[in-house]
Amino acid sequence: MIDWKAFAQELGDIPFSDDPVRVKRRSRDFYWYSPVLKPQLDNVSGDLLVTPRSEEEVIRVASLCAKYRAPITIRGGGTGNYGQAMPLKGGVVLDITELNRVIRLEKGVLRVQAGAKMNAIDAETRPQGWELRMYPSTKRTATIGGFVCGGSGGIGSVGYGGLRETGNVIAARVVTVELEPRIIELRGEECNKINRTFGTTGIVTELEIPMAPALPWRDLVISFAEFGKAAEFGQALASASGVEKKLVSVIDWPLPRYFQPLQKALIPEQPIVIAMVAESGMQALHDLCRQFGGTIVFEQDPVEAEATPATTPLFEYTWNHTTLQILKADRSVTYLQSMFPPGRNLELVQAMRERFGDEVIMHMEFLLFDGKLTNSALQVVRYTTEERLNEIMDEHEANGIFIANPHVYTLEDGSRHKRVPGDQMGFKAEVDPFGLLNPGKMRSYVPVA
Amino acid sequence: MIDWKAFAQELGDIPFSDDPVRVKRRSRDFYWYSPVLKPQLDNVSGDLLVTPRSEEEVIRVASLCAKYRAPITIRGGGTGNYGQAMPLKGGVVLDITELNRVIRLEKGVLRVQAGAKMNAIDAETRPQGWELRMYPSTKRTATIGGFVCGGSGGIGSVGYGGLRETGNVIAARVVTVELEPRIIELRGEECNKINRTFGTTGIVTELEIPMAPALPWRDLVISFAEFGKAAEFGQALASASGVEKKLVSVIDWPLPRYFQPLQKALIPEQPIVIAMVAESGMQALHDLCRQFGGTIVFEQDPVEAEATPATTPLFEYTWNHTTLQILKADRSVTYLQSMFPPGRNLELVQAMRERFGDEVIMHMEFLLFDGKLTNSALQVVRYTTEERLNEIMDEHEANGIFIANPHVYTLEDGSRHKRVPGDQMGFKAEVDPFGLLNPGKMRSYVPVA
Repeated sequence: MIDWKAFAQELGDIPFSDDPVRVKRRSRDFYWYSPVLKPQLDNVSGDLLVTPRSEEEVIRVASLCAKYRAPITIRGGGTGNYGQAMPLKGGVVLDITELNRVIRLEKGVLRVQAGAKMNAIDAETRPQGWELRMYPSTKRTATIGGFVCGGSGGIGSVGYGGLRETGNVIAARVVTVELEPRIIELRGEECNKINRTFGTTGIVTELEIPMAPALPWRDLVISFAEFGKAAEFGQALASASGVEKKLVSVIDWPLPRYFQPLQKALIPEQPIVIAMVAESGMQALHDLCRQFGGTIVFEQDPVEAEATPATTPLFEYTWNHTTLQILKADRSVTYLQSMFPPGRNLELVQAMRERFGDEVIMHMEFLLFDGKLTNSALQVVRYTTEERLNEIMDEHEANGIFIANPHVYTLEDGSRHKRVPGDQMGFKAEVDPFGLLNPGKMRSYVPVA
Repeated sequence: MIDWKAFAQELGDIPFSDDPVRVKRRSRDFYWYSPVLKPQLDNVSGDLLVTPRSEEEVIRVASLCAKYRAPITIRGGGTGNYGQAMPLKGGVVLDITELNRVIRLEKGVLRVQAGAKMNAIDAETRPQGWELRMYPSTKRTATIGGFVCGGSGGIGSVGYGGLRETGNVIAARVVTVELEPRIIELRGEECNKINRTFGTTGIVTELEIPMAPALPWRDLVISFAEFGKAAEFGQALASASGVEKKLVSVIDWPLPRYFQPLQKALIPEQPIVIAMVAESGMQALHDLCRQFGGTIVFEQDPVEAEATPATTPLFEYTWNHTTLQILKADRSVTYLQSMFPPGRNLELVQAMRERFGDEVIMHMEFLLFDGKLTNSALQVVRYTTEERLNEIMDEHEANGIFIANPHVYTLEDGSRHKRVPGDQMGFKAEVDPFGLLNPGKMRSYVPVA
């Protein structure tokens, strides 16, 4: 048993809370999208919420955790979908949102503290001509550290690919959890050691990322009489190298019916494409609409929409916000997390649509994967049983569609390879000898100390 | 016979020259790269060089040409490689370089007169944060109108694809050649009607093109022990969606030996990659160099180099400037113009290298074609006879490599489909009823008037 009173005393002036309600609230994420995870994780809570204000304070907390052998789970915006930031074994919840400073922005390279919110980063960098290359649909609450350590890609990946593609993370500064914590600077491909490991491989305090030039964007909803045309249009737009775009999402009817603020604009029964296209691509967009029979039914400035709390930027209907929009009205649904193989993607999308009908409703985003265009999908599933959900996922895999199961919380089970890459495992041994970082998530790790 | 005295008189105050030396000098391009075209085109010359200063003057010249049934060949920088701007039937050489004004730059869309030089455009737009998406290696002398009407792509096409990809040309303003010339505004996909038709389908006076955000670039020469590694590195860099780049060129030894200003930097016997990579991609570039065994042997700021007359930006060793650099020392070579099929490109590059050895020396550029990454190549050929040159091209085609024959001067013979697309042919009938525009280039056109 850890003596939390003594631990708290040793924290000195580092802000913390042991109020169980507050700690529990900051021990949760959006795991409840999964009816499988919900009962498993409902009661998870940390013991102490600690909110360091500097890297120096992070180091003091890390040292204390090593001394007390206290679990330490790092938390940004808490916008994960499968318990990434949830402290399975209790212990310290390390809230990094006070480490939110932009350190420098030079020649398109941003150095930033890990707890900076992504919309705050854009608000600060856009006036200087730069914006984030990619962000999750939770941009307005998520942190950059949480995205890099818990995510894989998002809005922007149609142009830049996912976080793990060469070049999308330049450096990461990592604090180890030891009696005398060290600071390790990872550079380039080494950054894969902390990407999507849910904070199990060190405490990331700073990130260096390449920015995109800030472009004038248009937010668009385009309506189609048939899903097939919407999908083909999406693929044509996504692969049009002459058109700059940040988002191409195809959403089958009836999902758009749940997008409340868009109801007046939508054409009933019609699937839609949601796209963010640069102003300079609008002529091409109109040409493509004519070619594929699409009608623009809604248009706005996404940067303005994002800055206005009452307005919804269209990306908040895409990626896993699609699921959220449905869940607001109907708690009986859940979702898949899938990646279609390049080349055969549209054919397989149609095959799965026909195979599962109303049970699995198609919702997909185009993105570059290993330099090739394809689409991922976060299909909305009318949930019946866990067994049936697994059957559905198995059948997708049997058809050559990759599944990253979002109904499990370990790194191993959630990965399509069902294991942790060797470099991540090796790095964990280096930075977390006692196995204190987010314990239970990298379940195949055996502490070395 | 045209009465040129009368014609000239009717020109009024529009500047012209009938000095045969001057007219002939402005009737030539770089056709002499081809030992086949050289004797065919050596004696080509216009009768009158006319240099309008406004669209209104262009219209007056067009009307006069219609009245006198005088051929009219439009000329920008004269940097074509197969007589694009050479007046086969004499007549008026219409020098458009005085129509060189930037009309507006708004939200990344540039409206510009067709005769603006491409490096002048960049010099004007870069301070506002925008630069040309793509340009030929002749950027420092070529005009935007000449590029769109005579070219297909170039530096920048590794990211944006060629000129003909959806979105890369937004609008073109065209003057017809009739007694009462009309002005036609083409938009979006309609612009294909004037792309790469050598000025046979109307007189383009203005273009609207989407710009790229201006990035801080690095110019790099990377040396490799073997060609295979250089090619794989090039493909990896070109397909790395997380790395912004403007140019990836692979040049086999001994070609780099002819790049005089680089001699001190180069490693003898080693093939090189020339790349323009954004500053934010330098970490990834170093990672890729390590992975493929490349050594950076030369580095500079390309924007600075371009602005300094005595300095050579590295793009002036790539695309068809590679051939030019060799020709400076050795007039016995010529080149191919080829496009490798995506997917099999590197395999076929190696096969052709092995097949032809020293006779055809590999030099290739990566680019996006129809949304897919592949490479084109402007291989340097040790020329013996026209028959042998044709044999070499035939064998490439037999292997599934597309050839755009640069040793012919008609649109039909130079295209890999051996014909003019229907929309271009139809548009020509509309804008050039008398068949006066660059006659002989669209040889299958029969005047409708």
